[in-house]
Amino acid sequence: MYFVKVYVTYKESVLDPQGEAVKGAVHRLGYEEIEEIRIGKYFEMKVAKSDRSIEEMIEEVCDKLLANINMETYRFEILEMEEV
Amino acid sequence: MYFVKVYVTYKESVLDPQGEAVKGAVHRLGYEEIEEIRIGKYFEMKVAKSDRSIEEMIEEVCDKLLANINMETYRFEILEMEEV
Repeated sequence: MYFVKVYVTYKESVLDPQGEAVKGAVHRLGYEEIEEIRIGKYFEMKVAKSDRSIEEMIEEVCDKLLANINMETYRFEILEMEEV
Repeated sequence: MYFVKVYVTYKESVLDPQGEAVKGAVHRLGYEEIEEIRIGKYFEMKVAKSDRSIEEMIEEVCDKLLANINMETYRFEILEMEEV
């Protein structure tokens, strides 16, 4: 079994209006030190072992479903879980 | 300057219908190995140094704004950026 974490964020060149809105709210609460906020998606997955390469499978799922590769970029971490 | 990453996820006891929906889509694409998906939010922040404790400030912002502490839990990482 693998435990996989996927992070999907907007590309640097893409504006993040949701992040701008949250930044405005943070400033109104008095936290002026927070100069930039960007918001992304975070996925945690439990994946059974199979004959397929786990890296290739996660890349395919990200490209096809989890990320909009025109506007977003992603990275992932794969942890191997010990069988109990 | 600090670079802060915040991960907000549903508590284990809270159902994640969006994650269930994505799991269904993943299975229809043929990735049956993916047995569980939970979806969270991910925030990246750039924070200026000040007299306040960075840890306390981020905790306050999470509690007040970024997470719904009734249903969600959060964790964060703080990286100190070198001034160039």
